[in-house]
Amino acid sequence: MAELDVVAIGNALVDVLSHAGEEFLRAHGLAKGTMQLVDEARARELYAAMGPGIEVSGGSAANTIVGVASFGGRAAYVGKVRNDQLGDVFSHDLRAMGVGYATPVATDGPSTGRCLIVVTPDAQRTMSTYLGASSRLGPFDIDKRLVERAQILYLEGYLFDRPEAQEAFRVAARIAHAAGRTVALTLSDPFCVDRHRAAFVDLVEHHVDVLFANDAEIRSLYEVADFETAAARVRGHCAIAALTRSERGSVVVSRDGVHVIEAEPVPKVLDTTGAGDLYAAGFMVGLSRRLPLATCGRLGALAAAEVISHVGARPMRSLADLAGAVLR
Amino acid sequence: MAELDVVAIGNALVDVLSHAGEEFLRAHGLAKGTMQLVDEARARELYAAMGPGIEVSGGSAANTIVGVASFGGRAAYVGKVRNDQLGDVFSHDLRAMGVGYATPVATDGPSTGRCLIVVTPDAQRTMSTYLGASSRLGPFDIDKRLVERAQILYLEGYLFDRPEAQEAFRVAARIAHAAGRTVALTLSDPFCVDRHRAAFVDLVEHHVDVLFANDAEIRSLYEVADFETAAARVRGHCAIAALTRSERGSVVVSRDGVHVIEAEPVPKVLDTTGAGDLYAAGFMVGLSRRLPLATCGRLGALAAAEVISHVGARPMRSLADLAGAVLR
Repeated sequence: MAELDVVAIGNALVDVLSHAGEEFLRAHGLAKGTMQLVDEARARELYAAMGPGIEVSGGSAANTIVGVASFGGRAAYVGKVRNDQLGDVFSHDLRAMGVGYATPVATDGPSTGRCLIVVTPDAQRTMSTYLGASSRLGPFDIDKRLVERAQILYLEGYLFDRPEAQEAFRVAARIAHAAGRTVALTLSDPFCVDRHRAAFVDLVEHHVDVLFANDAEIRSLYEVADFETAAARVRGHCAIAALTRSERGSVVVSRDGVHVIEAEPVPKVLDTTGAGDLYAAGFMVGLSRRLPLATCGRLGALAAAEVISHVGARPMRSLADLAGAVLR
Repeated sequence: MAELDVVAIGNALVDVLSHAGEEFLRAHGLAKGTMQLVDEARARELYAAMGPGIEVSGGSAANTIVGVASFGGRAAYVGKVRNDQLGDVFSHDLRAMGVGYATPVATDGPSTGRCLIVVTPDAQRTMSTYLGASSRLGPFDIDKRLVERAQILYLEGYLFDRPEAQEAFRVAARIAHAAGRTVALTLSDPFCVDRHRAAFVDLVEHHVDVLFANDAEIRSLYEVADFETAAARVRGHCAIAALTRSERGSVVVSRDGVHVIEAEPVPKVLDTTGAGDLYAAGFMVGLSRRLPLATCGRLGALAAAEVISHVGARPMRSLADLAGAVLR
């Protein structure tokens, strides 16, 4: 048995969350529901235009790994911050959840990365990311022993936005496979898929055991208009693909079959930030306990429902408590 | 007519909010519902023990002035941060609400102050404050022209915890009175009153026009066991005293009479942080528009109800919209 359930690698970011109307997105050329990379000057300009915010640790794979820990999973994270106040916040919030985190902190260069998130009245989030110190993650930050110790290696697609991080990604995947571990990937964002389509298709079809993608991402990957075609295509190439469809639930395809899982009802959706991240957390907790795929999907749906019912991308309740009987 | 409605002076802090059970308070010797000052080492130790948090701009008088701005009031703030990431967050969040903020930023010395807030399941907050750069506020930071321009000068009692800030407080109060302005004070915290009782009694009875205090604070000021005795005592000495009593509403005493104002019903109290701060905001907005004292209290109750119905000490909705007909 592996010593850890999941080790996740991603861009270490602190979220700055603020509410605004649709006109803010138009005025600043932001495409709703997506993530765009920005440089420091643009981040400063956007922040100055944003309303009052709250700061909360984020980063897609970091949100996922906190979800894994909240379910009671044994978890570790790899990602880079600087030795500054927001870096301290990020590290504290991981460790306070019991997530192992020992990536060397940058002592010079750009400040800790920030994700400026505008939440519109429809609860959709639109993200502008300044990678900052997280962009300094490279292959030398991958601890071979750590990756070998975890049953599942989880990688975020956003890593592909930097060549050095891509290389870290490939090094980690090779180590995991050599140790007989499972490699999981999330496509992260349809625009991110656009930017790296060929590389992602190669990864998904030859190097990834478990794929996470939402409707827009999987259609973007295969450049097809309908979900069913994309789902059929990925089914032929990847051992397990968990495809999320917001309020329409998720579809888990594997060589053995197709499972359709309903979304968990939510009294009021307040902020969709982290929905996909937390779905992946629940799903991998199920996988690590060798539960049936439909149960994995159900755990994902539970975790996603928790995180969209409040502002912020990390769970505010114990997911182990929430899952209750499903896990026991 | 004054150019500004309210100028507030206080300790500029960023809140770090985290949930914990009663056992956390016991284990760390924290008295529920109060504020204690801590040094940097103790702050670091407490933070390390706390669960994951969210960071949000705070500071008692700063919360109040943001409330004034949210009601549509013309507002400015005086308080000190450092040129660091949390200092940027604090400044941004004030300016994004339209609050004038031009206090010189510290370029050396301690980092921006932090208030570590533990919220227990009963929604009570317990605060440990590391003053940091906010303790560098002194009389030279008081802009005479700014204070003269505002109809009401609002001061937080927490300023009395440092001799330099006390001096800034007295300088500002003298300027305001010389310009024919109103001086308002909040007692801030029963332990703060304990620490500075004689000075506060002198202030309240000779230098303050409008006093804000909660039940525990006003009883502590006069060292009496019952609220009625304390209310009668302050009525003889201070032009207006607005005394808050949590779910029992508030009592406004003045030479002309006594008004009892009911608390605004709240579906669910999530976090009481900022209740008193926002009450003061609503009350002063009413005063600045020369509304009857009972209406001032009603505006205070509305603002307090908004802030306790979510996590964080600053309004998440427009208080002008919320007040609606009361203000028009």
